[in-house]
Amino acid sequence: MNERTKSHKMSDTSLQTSVRVKSFRAVGHLVDSGIMKEILDTIIREGGSFEIKRFDFGKTNEAHSTIEATYSAPGAGALDRISRALTDLGVDVDVEISAQVVEAPADGVAPPDFYTTTNHKSSVNYQGLLIPVEKIRMDGAIVITGEAGSTGATGATGATGATGATGAAMATGAFRAMCTKQRYLKKGDLVVVGLEGIKVEPEFIERDRSEFGFMTSDVSSERVVQIVVNRVADFMSDKSKKVIAVAGPVLVHTGGADGFCRLIEQGYINGILAGNALAVHDIENQLYGTSLGINTTSGESVDGGHSHHLRAINETCRAGSIANLIKEGTLKSGVMYSIVKAGIPYALAGSIRDDGPLPETITDMNEAQEEYIKILEGADVCLMLASMLHSIAVGNMLPARTLTVCVDIHPPVVTKLKDRGSHQTIGVVTDVGLFLHLLADRLCPV
Amino acid sequence: MNERTKSHKMSDTSLQTSVRVKSFRAVGHLVDSGIMKEILDTIIREGGSFEIKRFDFGKTNEAHSTIEATYSAPGAGALDRISRALTDLGVDVDVEISAQVVEAPADGVAPPDFYTTTNHKSSVNYQGLLIPVEKIRMDGAIVITGEAGSTGATGATGATGATGATGAAMATGAFRAMCTKQRYLKKGDLVVVGLEGIKVEPEFIERDRSEFGFMTSDVSSERVVQIVVNRVADFMSDKSKKVIAVAGPVLVHTGGADGFCRLIEQGYINGILAGNALAVHDIENQLYGTSLGINTTSGESVDGGHSHHLRAINETCRAGSIANLIKEGTLKSGVMYSIVKAGIPYALAGSIRDDGPLPETITDMNEAQEEYIKILEGADVCLMLASMLHSIAVGNMLPARTLTVCVDIHPPVVTKLKDRGSHQTIGVVTDVGLFLHLLADRLCPV
Amino acid sequence: MNERTKSHKMSDTSLQTSVRVKSFRAVGHLVDSGIMKEILDTIIREGGSFEIKRFDFGKTNEAHSTIEATYSAPGAGALDRISRALTDLGVDVDVEISAQVVEAPADGVAPPDFYTTTNHKSSVNYQGLLIPVEKIRMDGAIVITGEAGSTGATGATGATGATGATGAAMATGAFRAMCTKQRYLKKGDLVVVGLEGIKVEPEFIERDRSEFGFMTSDVSSERVVQIVVNRVADFMSDKSKKVIAVAGPVLVHTGGADGFCRLIEQGYINGILAGNALAVHDIENQLYGTSLGINTTSGESVDGGHSHHLRAINETCRAGSIANLIKEGTLKSGVMYSIVKAGIPYALAGSIRDDGPLPETITDMNEAQEEYIKILEGADVCLMLASMLHSIAVGNMLPARTLTVCVDIHPPVVTKLKDRGSHQTIGVVTDVGLFLHLLADRLCPV
Amino acid sequence: MNERTKSHKMSDTSLQTSVRVKSFRAVGHLVDSGIMKEILDTIIREGGSFEIKRFDFGKTNEAHSTIEATYSAPGAGALDRISRALTDLGVDVDVEISAQVVEAPADGVAPPDFYTTTNHKSSVNYQGLLIPVEKIRMDGAIVITGEAGSTGATGATGATGATGATGAAMATGAFRAMCTKQRYLKKGDLVVVGLEGIKVEPEFIERDRSEFGFMTSDVSSERVVQIVVNRVADFMSDKSKKVIAVAGPVLVHTGGADGFCRLIEQGYINGILAGNALAVHDIENQLYGTSLGINTTSGESVDGGHSHHLRAINETCRAGSIANLIKEGTLKSGVMYSIVKAGIPYALAGSIRDDGPLPETITDMNEAQEEYIKILEGADVCLMLASMLHSIAVGNMLPARTLTVCVDIHPPVVTKLKDRGSHQTIGVVTDVGLFLHLLADRLCPV
Repeated sequence: MNERTKSHKMSDTSLQTSVRVKSFRAVGHLVDSGIMKEILDTIIREGGSFEIKRFDFGKTNEAHSTIEATYSAPGAGALDRISRALTDLGVDVDVEISAQVVEAPADGVAPPDFYTTTNHKSSVNYQGLLIPVEKIRMDGAIVITGEAGSTGATGATGATGATGATGAAMATGAFRAMCTKQRYLKKGDLVVVGLEGIKVEPEFIERDRSEFGFMTSDVSSERVVQIVVNRVADFMSDKSKKVIAVAGPVLVHTGGADGFCRLIEQGYINGILAGNALAVHDIENQLYGTSLGINTTSGESVDGGHSHHLRAINETCRAGSIANLIKEGTLKSGVMYSIVKAGIPYALAGSIRDDGPLPETITDMNEAQEEYIKILEGADVCLMLASMLHSIAVGNMLPARTLTVCVDIHPPVVTKLKDRGSHQTIGVVTDVGLFLHLLADRLCPV
Repeated sequence: MNERTKSHKMSDTSLQTSVRVKSFRAVGHLVDSGIMKEILDTIIREGGSFEIKRFDFGKTNEAHSTIEATYSAPGAGALDRISRALTDLGVDVDVEISAQVVEAPADGVAPPDFYTTTNHKSSVNYQGLLIPVEKIRMDGAIVITGEAGSTGATGATGATGATGATGAAMATGAFRAMCTKQRYLKKGDLVVVGLEGIKVEPEFIERDRSEFGFMTSDVSSERVVQIVVNRVADFMSDKSKKVIAVAGPVLVHTGGADGFCRLIEQGYINGILAGNALAVHDIENQLYGTSLGINTTSGESVDGGHSHHLRAINETCRAGSIANLIKEGTLKSGVMYSIVKAGIPYALAGSIRDDGPLPETITDMNEAQEEYIKILEGADVCLMLASMLHSIAVGNMLPARTLTVCVDIHPPVVTKLKDRGSHQTIGVVTDVGLFLHLLADRLCPV
Repeated sequence: MNERTKSHKMSDTSLQTSVRVKSFRAVGHLVDSGIMKEILDTIIREGGSFEIKRFDFGKTNEAHSTIEATYSAPGAGALDRISRALTDLGVDVDVEISAQVVEAPADGVAPPDFYTTTNHKSSVNYQGLLIPVEKIRMDGAIVITGEAGSTGATGATGATGATGATGAAMATGAFRAMCTKQRYLKKGDLVVVGLEGIKVEPEFIERDRSEFGFMTSDVSSERVVQIVVNRVADFMSDKSKKVIAVAGPVLVHTGGADGFCRLIEQGYINGILAGNALAVHDIENQLYGTSLGINTTSGESVDGGHSHHLRAINETCRAGSIANLIKEGTLKSGVMYSIVKAGIPYALAGSIRDDGPLPETITDMNEAQEEYIKILEGADVCLMLASMLHSIAVGNMLPARTLTVCVDIHPPVVTKLKDRGSHQTIGVVTDVGLFLHLLADRLCPV
Repeated sequence: MNERTKSHKMSDTSLQTSVRVKSFRAVGHLVDSGIMKEILDTIIREGGSFEIKRFDFGKTNEAHSTIEATYSAPGAGALDRISRALTDLGVDVDVEISAQVVEAPADGVAPPDFYTTTNHKSSVNYQGLLIPVEKIRMDGAIVITGEAGSTGATGATGATGATGATGAAMATGAFRAMCTKQRYLKKGDLVVVGLEGIKVEPEFIERDRSEFGFMTSDVSSERVVQIVVNRVADFMSDKSKKVIAVAGPVLVHTGGADGFCRLIEQGYINGILAGNALAVHDIENQLYGTSLGINTTSGESVDGGHSHHLRAINETCRAGSIANLIKEGTLKSGVMYSIVKAGIPYALAGSIRDDGPLPETITDMNEAQEEYIKILEGADVCLMLASMLHSIAVGNMLPARTLTVCVDIHPPVVTKLKDRGSHQTIGVVTDVGLFLHLLADRLCPV
């Protein structure tokens, strides 16, 4: 209770006015998407109340619904929290007011009440222009750059698009809005604060994703894995889709490497995000026939086999890089071999538990995040294969529109991923080795 | 099969001789420790055979047993693997032969057949001197430094200690043997290769540890947690023991912070190893009453609460450090507050999934490992509290003599830790919040 | 596909007409309860379409909404499935038409298209009278008994209740509608078939349950268990509530027995449903200090202790019953002792894995189900304590209005329970021993 | 502590003498089987001490070792517990003394100190004859029947077999020793009490089983499932082996039914033990294309599909039996169809959570156990396929010599099975659907 009080004190500092009633407007598939329920739940949970001015229910499957209403709350803090939640749901609250910006007080420091982004498509009403936010991701800040140019002025006076009812013109001027992590802010950057002028547009349930509808609320293992494999394969068979795989070393232990290599070689994977361990286990497996000392053909522990792990690292360090190890003819097959031969981008992030690490492993976590983000840019599909640490990292980086499929034999991994905000994740609780085997058999049978 | 052949080719290079029979000797509680069974299993698994020359069974509970025997194997590779495994079990194989050393060919590169260490007490017979290996840990290399001084020469001629039967004198000269990670090797360092001259002494089951005997083979959750808590408390009540805690953010979510703070304040914890997330969740909880947006008092999700996470980071960045946040009076309680006030050492390691990170977080993983190792030095007990990533990292760093207690609600975490070589781990499958609550109530009741 | 075709063939046999459009009407908190979304999802999933005739959105928090609409479907099967799903959601579809009944063709056999019940409050329009269904539970059939008497006739002509818009009068005549399992049907019983005339009224989110709102969508273990304990305790502190506990033997292993006994002795538990194992473990623990051979005080395995399990059974068989074992003074404390002394009803169901069983154990599963149902009658709260088998059984028997709290350290148990239809379940992933300890400390501190 | 005292009081009643030293003898692979370690651990754990009179270590891989020693203990209770544990380990303790028998005091009641059996091969020295115990299983009592005939007398004077050192002749007379559950005892049956005269012979690690050596200590999911499948297939390819499958309904949900049917049709399975649910899910799947309302081809939930479950039951009840449902042509494929067509024995045990049940389901648990035991007789292999309840039941019934393979996606199931005494179990943590798919592909490819 004491905590709660404290909490209010700090989060309410931005709210100067005593206004306790706000109006909002939303258009879309409000009821069947569940957004309408979320809106009402939010208001009631915070002790607020609502009054509906107008509600047009879409009369048929295709038609949109429209709501115009007001809400009030018992206090400024609650009102603020409702506004925040409604904005995140895609409701237009104060979008017609220009966003406030405050200069970043120092490098890597945001103004106290900076707006923190969702992973949905967003725009900012800045000086009457509705500016789309670039590089949107979860948990970022929004920085405004450029200045109102002549074209911008024109836009502001003339443009009224389909969403023009928000009261702001779609930007055509020289202003830009960039989503960035707080640590990249520079002193003096114009950072959006508060909630005014923010427009969020959560994806409605798309055609493609709804094919996985039967999976989304469920991480149960009592499912026909083959069904999920078929759907994922159908989705991936369109090679214009950019597919990024996040891969853990378990796929080597569990015999998934062969299928994974085939997928890479045949062009179904466009980038790989992993840790040091994937590469080490893979190279160990290729050079010594073991993975962490376990013979991957017989499944037996090999006496002294654990040292293979370290020798694989040492061999790579001696050669200078994985690429060199391939060039000199020592590494002739396997996951890393296929990746290098296919010429697709990859990043190996370090971690506190690493042996070695390998020369390619990026030991600085800020750099590793940047490298990951670069490879993820424009991804349509993200396969998360038995790697909790990297999957959560990637989940934070992705916009909501990317379809993510998380395969892991441990249910808590998928649960954790969803809890952390990656709600678009389809969870498949199964053996990742068998999953890759089936997926490769479907997409590129031998 | 192809793999296997390849494997032999590479690992057998060090074996030049065609000797297929070796003799060994072991002394100790061979039977009740299970070592005798392991020795025989190893030989038979590799297709070898043994002949026992002498076996003196300790006639009573206290007496040691002694075995002298020979083993042979179908090939050089198998013989090599048996030797490696027996050495690791503490059996004297070729200890009377001086260890071979080879210069590291480049910085960060070991000779191909370098000896990889276990986490047990070890010594090297080098030029007739039995030199104890310093800073022993799993998966390291051994470097010999110094030179045979006059005292060393004396030792070599005269000393025959209790273990003198090995044929090497205990070192008194100027040679030293250091365990080091491969990445720290410098070109020209003398690195021990092969298995000759290596003596490993695994701990017998100690008095203290055996009090946890009922736990060791078991990670079941169907146990009386209170019993484990009582034993751990008895062990920790001796404040001369150095206790290091590896702590995950879950202890904040699950209400374990209060108990943990009491343990810190009353001097029961001598160092903390964690990640960025522990500190962020803790500061978020202190400043805003939430942990990842969940109110820790009511358990309810707070609308817009997720931004608290980012604001906690931003506040700390603004202040410049956690210490400054305390100094300026913003952070007045909680885990980080207790740590800083108690003045105990701590290290926050970064990871690819971090938000922020905080100013104190070490983003380079090599540096983070070094900081962890520094704090762990001399640890008697290591409490691993719901943090898989950091627990595995720490398991790799610890000598086997450190008692480790791993508390996690997910059984696979403990299983994984044991699989990776930290066999000394006692696993407790329970809620970490309740565990800390009970432990604090026992050691420092309010 | 082939399967699907077959499926339609069998389930569509009851549909003779070619009507492809139906109208429906629903009143209530349609949007914030999520029912409106479910209605639309159902229609679209089956390839149908809808047209809304009238939608009155409740203007404030308290006001109900009303919808009147029609739906059509591509085929008779789909239309049938939509009707079924809408009916289960509480929507009035064909409620104004009198339900059809068909005689059961043999003992224990229902007519092919018999209506299968939900666990929500239900009524049947039979010959113009809206008759409440008694003893509602999941997966039953509805049997109509009695005949339209003089009072019934009056009712049929006059009564128009609050829900009179459905076109049927609330029954005051001699007809009764009973929910019964198919196996209890007698040849000639009048069984309701098809969907016409069925009215289901799912509970709206109640005040009491909403206090657990933060838990319902979540079986995560990363929560403050104390918070849940406090809420459950508050709920149970009103002794007018009937509380039934379903208890597994794990509560004896994990030290929960003391707390559980206190709750029983102080009148917080009004009935116990368990299996043979709970009683055996408890008696073993009382007579020999072990539970399945593990000393419950020290946690150590007792040599030969496993036979205690069998001796506990044998002792009880010798005495003739648990009650006799208490009467003769052999059993002086523990869970069974507390239950017998408190005089509350209990049932021990047998299972294929039982040792013994004890004299009290009901070995016939049909009888055991009947005994369970008798004890559950009128239950307000059901605590499911670490017993998957019995919890699923009880979940099937309960009406949806009973608040159920499922405590188990394994997340899949709670997931499974919810998957099987007991959506009203609040899942708590924690150690059941500690949960009972905390709950007893809160409700009846020593 | 109080409990412990009580415990001693009750279990020591049979020990009248004040003898505190006993001698024992054991022959076999004592060290590499780990039995020697177990013997010493047991003595020390109970606070006892030992003195070794003679120890001959088998000099080579094949040779047996022999130990002769004495042990003493601080009290009669501890001595008793050591004797019990040593006997169970296969050590000859007091085997040369004739077993004591006491009449069962009533039907279903054993004498207080009756000997409770292990699941290992056992014999009883009765009146100088070493009688093999028939129908050995865990947790039974031993009843002596018959009387010393003329042939028996001959045996007693002359026979000294390989194990003759025990001081008892192998029985050739008219005495028989039967293992039976306590509930089947009749008043007056001669039941073996105490530990004297009991000889237990645990299997040494056999050739066949050791092929699974890499699995036994491990229930990890990070393994190449294909390896395990290959070994199991090799083992099952010898059709002279009797293979019994314990099957849960999950194999229908997860797409394992096709493979399972092929294994049945091709004669690889010789009996099926299951519950009501397997048959219901299978019939539902065949008649309606769903399993618990989920379409098994598309993985989607079917509106109203849950009622299929009940209709499948009703259809079978209408036909009178599963066999009739096949005969009339309604059920044309699936698991139950294959079983009935193949003519192999099966038993469906009821449980408290059953719907229906089906006409074939055995609702009385004592009868169900008897039916299970009948089918299990002489089983060489037992496949436990995702059915915890029935697997534990079967684990209790099997002699230790039967190889059991437990496949389940939840690690706790395997752990629980091992904890309950079925140590011979090989655990495979994977998707049971994929496991059966791979196993059938290996043994009987389409």
